[in-house]
Amino acid sequence: MSQQRPALRSLGFFPDHLPSGPHNALTDVAGVRVGHTTVSFGQGRLQPGRGPARTGVTAILPCPDPWNFRLPCSAFVLNGNGEVAGLAYLQDVGTLEVPILLTNTLNVGKVADAVISWLIARHPGIGIDQDVPIAVVGECDDSTLNDIQGRHVEAQHVWQALDQASPGPFLQGAVGAGTGMIAYDFKAGIGTASRQVSQGYLVGVLVNANHGHRYELQIPGQRRLPESQIPLPPRKTEGSIMIVLATDAPLSCLQLQRLARRAALGLARTGACAHHGSGDLILAFSTANALPRGWKGPRNWTLLPDQELDELYRAAVEATQESVLNSLWWAETCLGRDDQVAQAIPTEFFAGLVN
Amino acid sequence: MSQQRPALRSLGFFPDHLPSGPHNALTDVAGVRVGHTTVSFGQGRLQPGRGPARTGVTAILPCPDPWNFRLPCSAFVLNGNGEVAGLAYLQDVGTLEVPILLTNTLNVGKVADAVISWLIARHPGIGIDQDVPIAVVGECDDSTLNDIQGRHVEAQHVWQALDQASPGPFLQGAVGAGTGMIAYDFKAGIGTASRQVSQGYLVGVLVNANHGHRYELQIPGQRRLPESQIPLPPRKTEGSIMIVLATDAPLSCLQLQRLARRAALGLARTGACAHHGSGDLILAFSTANALPRGWKGPRNWTLLPDQELDELYRAAVEATQESVLNSLWWAETCLGRDDQVAQAIPTEFFAGLVN
Amino acid sequence: MSQQRPALRSLGFFPDHLPSGPHNALTDVAGVRVGHTTVSFGQGRLQPGRGPARTGVTAILPCPDPWNFRLPCSAFVLNGNGEVAGLAYLQDVGTLEVPILLTNTLNVGKVADAVISWLIARHPGIGIDQDVPIAVVGECDDSTLNDIQGRHVEAQHVWQALDQASPGPFLQGAVGAGTGMIAYDFKAGIGTASRQVSQGYLVGVLVNANHGHRYELQIPGQRRLPESQIPLPPRKTEGSIMIVLATDAPLSCLQLQRLARRAALGLARTGACAHHGSGDLILAFSTANALPRGWKGPRNWTLLPDQELDELYRAAVEATQESVLNSLWWAETCLGRDDQVAQAIPTEFFAGLVN
Amino acid sequence: MSQQRPALRSLGFFPDHLPSGPHNALTDVAGVRVGHTTVSFGQGRLQPGRGPARTGVTAILPCPDPWNFRLPCSAFVLNGNGEVAGLAYLQDVGTLEVPILLTNTLNVGKVADAVISWLIARHPGIGIDQDVPIAVVGECDDSTLNDIQGRHVEAQHVWQALDQASPGPFLQGAVGAGTGMIAYDFKAGIGTASRQVSQGYLVGVLVNANHGHRYELQIPGQRRLPESQIPLPPRKTEGSIMIVLATDAPLSCLQLQRLARRAALGLARTGACAHHGSGDLILAFSTANALPRGWKGPRNWTLLPDQELDELYRAAVEATQESVLNSLWWAETCLGRDDQVAQAIPTEFFAGLVN
Repeated sequence: MSQQRPALRSLGFFPDHLPSGPHNALTDVAGVRVGHTTVSFGQGRLQPGRGPARTGVTAILPCPDPWNFRLPCSAFVLNGNGEVAGLAYLQDVGTLEVPILLTNTLNVGKVADAVISWLIARHPGIGIDQDVPIAVVGECDDSTLNDIQGRHVEAQHVWQALDQASPGPFLQGAVGAGTGMIAYDFKAGIGTASRQVSQGYLVGVLVNANHGHRYELQIPGQRRLPESQIPLPPRKTEGSIMIVLATDAPLSCLQLQRLARRAALGLARTGACAHHGSGDLILAFSTANALPRGWKGPRNWTLLPDQELDELYRAAVEATQESVLNSLWWAETCLGRDDQVAQAIPTEFFAGLVN
Repeated sequence: MSQQRPALRSLGFFPDHLPSGPHNALTDVAGVRVGHTTVSFGQGRLQPGRGPARTGVTAILPCPDPWNFRLPCSAFVLNGNGEVAGLAYLQDVGTLEVPILLTNTLNVGKVADAVISWLIARHPGIGIDQDVPIAVVGECDDSTLNDIQGRHVEAQHVWQALDQASPGPFLQGAVGAGTGMIAYDFKAGIGTASRQVSQGYLVGVLVNANHGHRYELQIPGQRRLPESQIPLPPRKTEGSIMIVLATDAPLSCLQLQRLARRAALGLARTGACAHHGSGDLILAFSTANALPRGWKGPRNWTLLPDQELDELYRAAVEATQESVLNSLWWAETCLGRDDQVAQAIPTEFFAGLVN
Repeated sequence: MSQQRPALRSLGFFPDHLPSGPHNALTDVAGVRVGHTTVSFGQGRLQPGRGPARTGVTAILPCPDPWNFRLPCSAFVLNGNGEVAGLAYLQDVGTLEVPILLTNTLNVGKVADAVISWLIARHPGIGIDQDVPIAVVGECDDSTLNDIQGRHVEAQHVWQALDQASPGPFLQGAVGAGTGMIAYDFKAGIGTASRQVSQGYLVGVLVNANHGHRYELQIPGQRRLPESQIPLPPRKTEGSIMIVLATDAPLSCLQLQRLARRAALGLARTGACAHHGSGDLILAFSTANALPRGWKGPRNWTLLPDQELDELYRAAVEATQESVLNSLWWAETCLGRDDQVAQAIPTEFFAGLVN
Repeated sequence: MSQQRPALRSLGFFPDHLPSGPHNALTDVAGVRVGHTTVSFGQGRLQPGRGPARTGVTAILPCPDPWNFRLPCSAFVLNGNGEVAGLAYLQDVGTLEVPILLTNTLNVGKVADAVISWLIARHPGIGIDQDVPIAVVGECDDSTLNDIQGRHVEAQHVWQALDQASPGPFLQGAVGAGTGMIAYDFKAGIGTASRQVSQGYLVGVLVNANHGHRYELQIPGQRRLPESQIPLPPRKTEGSIMIVLATDAPLSCLQLQRLARRAALGLARTGACAHHGSGDLILAFSTANALPRGWKGPRNWTLLPDQELDELYRAAVEATQESVLNSLWWAETCLGRDDQVAQAIPTEFFAGLVN
């Protein structure tokens, strides 16, 4: 996969946005790591359970050891036609103590089970003299391109994504969980971006974009999208978008709940109307105020006052907007099951600001 | 107040949007009536409690007799730094049985009380042999222009707005509850729009817009806003936006909850980031399936299947976007308390599509 | 009003409960003050608007100056057929910066307006160079006994309740907002209790109880309630219960949300099924971590870890249970409008543990 | 497993409750089927991954073909320290189109995956020309008795529970997902009960009870529990309770949301305080108004008016209370991993009403 294009920002997009972090990525938030395993094999006619596979898994490690250093978090359901395993825990306990995995809809169970195995391997007291973890796995439906019945993401793929997760820049587009994604009727997948606010804090966003109709797409500076002869992919069902926000700003769970809602506003800037068939789910966590497992007694949290959150809200909006566009920008045309095709978005769609 | 400008839509804005209803207004939904009372007097230095007043009240009658023909409804809190009296009832019972009033923040109590009086006058059994109503009143803070301590909206103003509420087109901008509003650092206030979906149903939106920074404003087709020498209004606090959606589509309360969320996406298209100080609250009701008071036994509801809501969602997004821009488009420069000024947005801000 | 009975706890009730605070009252939480104004006049036939009045207002000052020292809070809606003005702010901003008032359903507007006046008198910069407050007012329907159309709670009554609010023990039963209440078909009203946990923190509860059918009532140690010849009050509509929890334990807004839910479990122990017509709303706030208005920059919060909340949860359950029973225990028979009567619960209903 | 005891109701418990359905079980709601697979092998010392196993799976088929005849549903999170896979879909889409499975915490992934396989086998168009399902799996932690790391519930066990699910009475106590459960420090597990309201509708409840401390337990008619020499089980972590409600009453999703909340009130009657470590999650569905997959156009729903729900609310409270007590009543002493024991509750705990 070539990722040799210039980044959209370098082409003049988002001129009024806040500055991005060093890699313009979720991983700009210190401690956050991302890893992908792409599972792609076979071609031609669908043989349910045997391929072709156009899928994968993306792992987000929120900190080096979330099981022992738990992070405040929250989640917002913009449209609930999708799944984030572990949602009740994230929303009501407000603690992230496991990695976040993204994969295809039917693979959620297998991926959740693989995460449990991975955690047990690292923390052998789980379920013996320690509490038990609940896996956090988000999904999008890649069945237009992928043999989704096959659930081709195996435990080894999950472990690989987790073990190889790293800080710094990472591939976007049709990679990992993004392998089979289609957004706005173009090939899409993983996208990321980050923004830095004047207090110095960072907000990073990662999306797996699989939503929307082509006529809805809004690209900044484009009054109308160019007429396109590119055929629409033959979608039977509608997709979803998973959005993960990280920040190093010291926020409470309630503040993270509100931050998560702002991602919906950034998604809206790209034209999304949150269709019924779309599971539009947003997770947000902060790497500040990590809580050591087993802590006893009152504990000091450093928290920002609500009055100082506005730039973080703006950062969440802007980074989500760019992440969705990046997911399109970086994704290459994909030939999937039954020779169904999702075309990459032509560069002229981004011409409004390029010239 | 002159409202002689051509409408934005007639200037070529929103070319890809769904068609609007006959008046491009909330009142396109049959049975919905809107009335304004503007309360504006005095000038110069603020004398707390005595003026100058730049405020008012806007009444929305969801159907001719909501007390006896109750409507399914819901509400979504995008950001809770504001008030809609009656929120628990709207969200959890899902029944709208009173008019919706909009006014300034400190006037909520008086307006609520006036609505109760107005309802008792029409339904003298209230609290005697009938149940008791809970007023529904939304607010925005107009204290930059208005003597808000004065709570100058009196019961008579509320009754007048309710009694004169009418179907058909109504004034937008600095009128009624919109009198003292400022959005994106320009004069704003009431805005409305409607969209019709292919099944024939209408979605109407009314906003009272009082939110946002100028640099955030996004106007379709404008790559960047023009440089402007117009001074910013001297805001001490941040505003809010109240959004009311009506539809004649037969929707359940849960479906209306989801529809309300889409208004947030339309708001986002105008650049809003939902600042901490902003109370961004959204109400949605359906005029279908009105429930007669005192109904006994099972009752038939006609409801759309979820799979057929997407165009309604799009209508909510688009009508909200246009309503916010209309609230700016129609508002005229206002000289308020202490000679503080909120300037009308110059027409050249909308030049991108005008020429 | 005589309150000379021995308290239920002194009679052997709740033998396995946590210890109570010094006054077994909401005001055991340091800084919390409670004041009542009872508005009771007239008798005989209802003359709508003129009496008889059997109503009132109860004020809860969460700390000496909540406007300048704001408290973390949350709210839980067990059943939304009722009103707490200010709910969106309490739930989504999670800040309590005004007193909490309780009154009758139709009086919410007037009481809210009176609170605003009271706040302006103390903080004259409100709405001029300061932000604007949103009143917090809860309600129950006292229309069986009271001329509720009359809205006889005037601003002076609200001010009096606020100004005379004091720490220490306070009257329970048919007093203040409890004047016209009926619970489990007996006379009821204000009830309070507190519990102390082993870490030393206190949880105080105040209820205004106006809910339930007689056959539902559950009294600890009573296998069945005694047969009673006491006639049922002639209720046209169903009532509600407002529950306010205070604690000095250092809890986050999310933790307070969870604490509020436990009050519902305590309410359930008294037999409540949360009828449709009942507005069962619960507020919770913590006096720890008061946030000075205008605070700039990150700030330290001391918070308990989630693992140490269980005894506080138990305290919330137990104090709510006792508060509801206390509201019955202390309420005296009331003759209301149209000579409608709500009888005090006979002491033999509490005989199970008395002998 | 002997289930020869007389039922609690036949012993005089719950004398004032509504009548139960024919089997006093969830399956009294027509169309609902329940199946258990118990997975129990090995003894003595824990060998992580190899046993001893004291676990299982319980399957609830909400109607004969939920994939093609989808049911309205909702969910309430009383305390979120637990998992129901599929929660966002249940709450926000409000549609139940798959069976509900209950198992242990670490087995959720494998059970979810097995359900997907089972659904694909019956509906081979899934993910090809049909939409994709999201599994619904609830969990409780059975690690005190079970080798939970081993995830011994295999796909075959899930299929067996689904395939053998049947109407009519079913085993309670330490069976299926209840095999390793402990509630109030006694052996517990699956419990069920039902209530019939005067309109003829049924409410059925099934719980998997794994929560609470012994001193909290409340048994009707018992002023205090007997002193017991029975040792406490050596719990390292706290448990949870999963509650599933079914009704044939025609309710909307919003009404089912409110019904689900009433289950929390029934749970409270047994003494539960919803500890932090407890995942107390409640699902509710209605078998009325099943929606055929692929339905086009408006559709008639028959719905009860809100004013007629009170007896259903009472039924939910009472059936949940009895279900929890039944889960204790029917569970037999279990010797688990490392010879850890959970003792059955002695019958004298229920003596208050027996004699």
